[in-house]
Amino acid sequence: RYGEAELEDQVGVVTGLAWTEVGGELLTIEGVMMPGKGKMTVTGNLRDVMKESISAAASYVRSRAVDFGIEPPLFDKRDIHVHVPEGATPKDGPSAGIAMATAVISVMTGIPVRRHVAMTGEITLRGRILPIGGLKEKLLAALRGGITTVMIPEDNAKDLADIPDNVKNGLEIIPVSRMEEVLKTALVRTPEPIEWDEAAADAAAKSVVQEDDAAKLVAH
Amino acid sequence: RYGEAELEDQVGVVTGLAWTEVGGELLTIEGVMMPGKGKMTVTGNLRDVMKESISAAASYVRSRAVDFGIEPPLFDKRDIHVHVPEGATPKDGPSAGIAMATAVISVMTGIPVRRHVAMTGEITLRGRILPIGGLKEKLLAALRGGITTVMIPEDNAKDLADIPDNVKNGLEIIPVSRMEEVLKTALVRTPEPIEWDEAAADAAAKSVVQEDDAAKLVAH
Amino acid sequence: RYGEAELEDQVGVVTGLAWTEVGGELLTIEGVMMPGKGKMTVTGNLRDVMKESISAAASYVRSRAVDFGIEPPLFDKRDIHVHVPEGATPKDGPSAGIAMATAVISVMTGIPVRRHVAMTGEITLRGRILPIGGLKEKLLAALRGGITTVMIPEDNAKDLADIPDNVKNGLEIIPVSRMEEVLKTALVRTPEPIEWDEAAADAAAKSVVQEDDAAKLVAH
Amino acid sequence: RYGEAELEDQVGVVTGLAWTEVGGELLTIEGVMMPGKGKMTVTGNLRDVMKESISAAASYVRSRAVDFGIEPPLFDKRDIHVHVPEGATPKDGPSAGIAMATAVISVMTGIPVRRHVAMTGEITLRGRILPIGGLKEKLLAALRGGITTVMIPEDNAKDLADIPDNVKNGLEIIPVSRMEEVLKTALVRTPEPIEWDEAAADAAAKSVVQEDDAAKLVAH
Amino acid sequence: RYGEAELEDQVGVVTGLAWTEVGGELLTIEGVMMPGKGKMTVTGNLRDVMKESISAAASYVRSRAVDFGIEPPLFDKRDIHVHVPEGATPKDGPSAGIAMATAVISVMTGIPVRRHVAMTGEITLRGRILPIGGLKEKLLAALRGGITTVMIPEDNAKDLADIPDNVKNGLEIIPVSRMEEVLKTALVRTPEPIEWDEAAADAAAKSVVQEDDAAKLVAH
Amino acid sequence: RYGEAELEDQVGVVTGLAWTEVGGELLTIEGVMMPGKGKMTVTGNLRDVMKESISAAASYVRSRAVDFGIEPPLFDKRDIHVHVPEGATPKDGPSAGIAMATAVISVMTGIPVRRHVAMTGEITLRGRILPIGGLKEKLLAALRGGITTVMIPEDNAKDLADIPDNVKNGLEIIPVSRMEEVLKTALVRTPEPIEWDEAAADAAAKSVVQEDDAAKLVAH
Ligand SMILES: [Ca+2]
Ligand SMILES: [Ca+2]
Ligand SMILES: [Ca+2]
Ligand SMILES: [Ca+2]
Ligand SMILES: [Ca+2]
Ligand SMILES: [Ca+2]
Ligand SMILES: [Ca+2]
Ligand SMILES: [Ca+2]
Ligand SMILES: [Ca+2]
Ligand SMILES: [Ca+2]
Ligand SMILES: [Ca+2]
Ligand SMILES: [Ca+2]
Repeated sequence: RYGEAELEDQVGVVTGLAWTEVGGELLTIEGVMMPGKGKMTVTGNLRDVMKESISAAASYVRSRAVDFGIEPPLFDKRDIHVHVPEGATPKDGPSAGIAMATAVISVMTGIPVRRHVAMTGEITLRGRILPIGGLKEKLLAALRGGITTVMIPEDNAKDLADIPDNVKNGLEIIPVSRMEEVLKTALVRTPEPIEWDEAAADAAAKSVVQEDDAAKLVAH
Repeated sequence: RYGEAELEDQVGVVTGLAWTEVGGELLTIEGVMMPGKGKMTVTGNLRDVMKESISAAASYVRSRAVDFGIEPPLFDKRDIHVHVPEGATPKDGPSAGIAMATAVISVMTGIPVRRHVAMTGEITLRGRILPIGGLKEKLLAALRGGITTVMIPEDNAKDLADIPDNVKNGLEIIPVSRMEEVLKTALVRTPEPIEWDEAAADAAAKSVVQEDDAAKLVAH
Repeated sequence: RYGEAELEDQVGVVTGLAWTEVGGELLTIEGVMMPGKGKMTVTGNLRDVMKESISAAASYVRSRAVDFGIEPPLFDKRDIHVHVPEGATPKDGPSAGIAMATAVISVMTGIPVRRHVAMTGEITLRGRILPIGGLKEKLLAALRGGITTVMIPEDNAKDLADIPDNVKNGLEIIPVSRMEEVLKTALVRTPEPIEWDEAAADAAAKSVVQEDDAAKLVAH
Repeated sequence: RYGEAELEDQVGVVTGLAWTEVGGELLTIEGVMMPGKGKMTVTGNLRDVMKESISAAASYVRSRAVDFGIEPPLFDKRDIHVHVPEGATPKDGPSAGIAMATAVISVMTGIPVRRHVAMTGEITLRGRILPIGGLKEKLLAALRGGITTVMIPEDNAKDLADIPDNVKNGLEIIPVSRMEEVLKTALVRTPEPIEWDEAAADAAAKSVVQEDDAAKLVAH
Repeated sequence: RYGEAELEDQVGVVTGLAWTEVGGELLTIEGVMMPGKGKMTVTGNLRDVMKESISAAASYVRSRAVDFGIEPPLFDKRDIHVHVPEGATPKDGPSAGIAMATAVISVMTGIPVRRHVAMTGEITLRGRILPIGGLKEKLLAALRGGITTVMIPEDNAKDLADIPDNVKNGLEIIPVSRMEEVLKTALVRTPEPIEWDEAAADAAAKSVVQEDDAAKLVAH
Repeated sequence: RYGEAELEDQVGVVTGLAWTEVGGELLTIEGVMMPGKGKMTVTGNLRDVMKESISAAASYVRSRAVDFGIEPPLFDKRDIHVHVPEGATPKDGPSAGIAMATAVISVMTGIPVRRHVAMTGEITLRGRILPIGGLKEKLLAALRGGITTVMIPEDNAKDLADIPDNVKNGLEIIPVSRMEEVLKTALVRTPEPIEWDEAAADAAAKSVVQEDDAAKLVAH
């Protein structure tokens, strides 16, 4: 049922954790990639701060693309849409940042996300993870929703003292301080870095033209 | 008369179900496709959440285009306009999502929509269907309006216990959890997937140029 | 005098009917076409719903262009401006839709509009006509303004029972349900459909280039 | 001094008439043309209705360009800026429409505007002139400001009965119903229509290329 | 110290005069030019009327470019940024117009602005100068700030009767009615007009291509 | 921990100082550079004045690019994103200007920023530094956060008299009046100016084409 862990590991589907007036809740984040021209669409009744956290997550991914095995020109040939379902509920705040980044990396690499993993944490442009609020409510929601592993910001680890033991026993709670740690746990396999030499790529594109020229030269 | 089922199966015309303060109502969703450059227009006195549900529906269709037999480059050569008539009434909410997706698929494939079918359900970017509110009022409106078949989200099936028997007897009510099920019932025939190899398509486009080059070579 | 029927049949000038707090009124809708790039401008102190009704009317025309004898590429080579004079008065609502569509078709085909005809009705993307409010006030305004023929939505025909006999005797009142009926009465001649084969048009454009190529081949 | 008639006939400077809470006032409208790409800028603390009246005036001029001796491609190679000085005062309403159109025609044709002429009237897209308010205050302001000739809408001619004799004796008041009449009085000479054959212009542009091709053919 | 006259004559730095609730103040206006595409950026917590005065100043300069020795194509190859420092203070009104125009001309010609000169006056699109408010407070601020020469609108010269003698003795006050007068005093040297023949410039650009063609012809 | 000095010198990460109702605070400013087209994105729940200060900082860098060793065409081939983390907190004011400029220069030159340095000051388009408020609270926050060196505007040096001795002893406080001084202290090495001759660069790009032409000539 919606609002619980997914039934299978999927590309681009990440479980975040929201904190509302009536308690914590699972927050599904969905990304899809389409042939396009580099446009990013974000929907789901999102307020400005959550929209900006997607923007920051996307720039983190773009600026580090080769570390995730993504060829930079792909950003110009695809559109990405990030959607947070349940459109009737307004959503705000920066704490879904690391889930957003995970969704973008998953759709661009094609690597599925483990379905029993949830995560909460603000992301910076360099992939550092900042603390969040509502830890207790979020962990309770994760437990209720069938999640087995939750990543939380390392700066929130001190707050675990206040979490009931049954919650801490029922969940593997992993404090994380950098996106690399998030990806290691969240993705079914770790993205492989690639070499990318902008000049070489330009030259390769050029050599195709040069071969054409060569063909012409021979024929005359 | 307007506000009742259509008189014939039409391309791009889908019947949704709205829930207003004064009861349920049929909601006609219309799509047309025009020669263009990939622009999407949405009108009909729509508030933000309904506009976003059209955006999500469109990205679902674009990201899955080949499964519906739509060649991806078509999205760049056509404009689409989705309109919800009765402009004097403001409209909002995500529950027309699956009707929006059906309208877009119908106009892009040219496959007509069965006119006695209505539907309600939020759509996710991956084509999953999320629960909606106002089920009873919507089903009453469908019955009044001459609809014979209504698709509802599977997560709302539990609410059918509260629906009067005469309504359940007068309508075929189909719980659905994925867009594929919606299309099977709503369209007069099922879209056929196509093979689409981006590289091959690029190569084909290139071979035309190469033939031109060949012609030149011969002539010199 | 302004606010009365025009003095001659003109291209792009259509008489709509508005309903204000102080009674009905003639509403002149003006369209002009200019060399351009497909831009649509709408002015006249129009609120959102009336702006959207022009958008819907324009998409109806674009999606059915060949039925009106309009070659689709014309939309990319012209700008259209639709203006509703008397800028001091705010205007809203969807009921000028069919007048908007008639104005756009008239400017794009160059066929004048009969000056003693007025009309009221919301338009759908497929050219169906939806009912409107204020029928009585609008018919009185038409009579006062020298109009002889008024088209009203077929779904409003039932409301004619409440209209005074002197109004019904002074006006030819034509209930209409589709734009085709509107055009037959409103335009001085009916637009002729054309054949349009997108592929053939592309090929024709290409053959020009091929001839150029041929010339080159001969010359070498 | 500013707020009085200009000292010499200038290109693009037109005197309109405004009606404020504290009486009538001369309203200078300035237009300039610059090398550009067809952009129109409007400034001067203008509210929406006055901005729209400039838009309507500009479309009137563009759609009738050849009648004023303006070659249509000029609109794509120039930017126009219309400014209404005294930025501290907000300005609104449609009654400066005919002055706006006169300013645009003057800058595009290079024909100066007679400096002792003022004018008031809403313009339609087809160059018809609609009635305005505050006639008496506007005429008084014209007289005070050294204006000798005022054009007013023909539909306001009936209001002249209420104007004091000394005002009517001190000003030549010309009721006008169409822009052609305005231009005849306002400009120091009447614009000459030109022939413009879009196809021929395209062909001429093409023949330049063909000559180039010919040169190549000879040389091989 | 900031808020006083600059230490040396600089390109693009002009001292305006503002009038606030607590008295007059020096207002530094800064312009810079960068390689670009003709974009104009304006910042400094500016309200709409001050933004529009920069727009009018820029159009004055563009429409008169050759009179200032600026080759018109430069506008397409540079971006300009005009900034009014002290971002914490909102700024509005048209009276910095002539300072804005001076800043734009200085950055585009590279001619420095005399640092002991301040100015106040609204600008029109044709470079006329309109009167402003707060003359006394502005002159006091100029004196306090180490300014030696102040240009004021000629239409404000009558207000000098109310200015204390010590202010009038401590400042050279120059009433001006046209931008040409402003530039003569404000810039360290007067811009030299250039000849600019659009057709000739186009032809020159073309001749480069023709030479290339010629080279090809010889080589075959 | 976040909110303290960074653990290592990083490219594009600069520590600013904010002044809130509850005291001073370290403000991390992050910049990243990506392959792109010259787009600048700014996020972090920033209000207009802080956004404008980034715009001014960026124009300062662009207009002085060669002084920092940045080849001007780089601005067209990269996107830059500046983000101020802790999205839940709205941020405003111009006092982070010099930190913004330092972040942009660091990402574009690849020179890391010393991690124990913090700074506060409004920037002008020419790199002058204007005074700020809340000096005492900002210095206290710097001391608390492990900062060793703080740059403050020279115009604030007079305010140091009010700062407790323990703060002045615990921090190296450097009054600065120009960005050059800021960069000397903040960056791990000083950017080296380059020569940049726009015409020569154009010619170089052209010579590549000419070589291609030469190759063709030989082959015929
Ligand atoms: Ca939920
Ligand atoms: Ca860790
Ligand atoms: Ca209804
Ligand atoms: Ca099912
Ligand atoms: Ca009227
Ligand atoms: Ca009928
Ligand atoms: Ca005045
Ligand atoms: Ca007349
Ligand atoms: Ca100040
Ligand atoms: Ca003078
Ligand atoms: Ca903090
Ligand atoms: Ca210093």
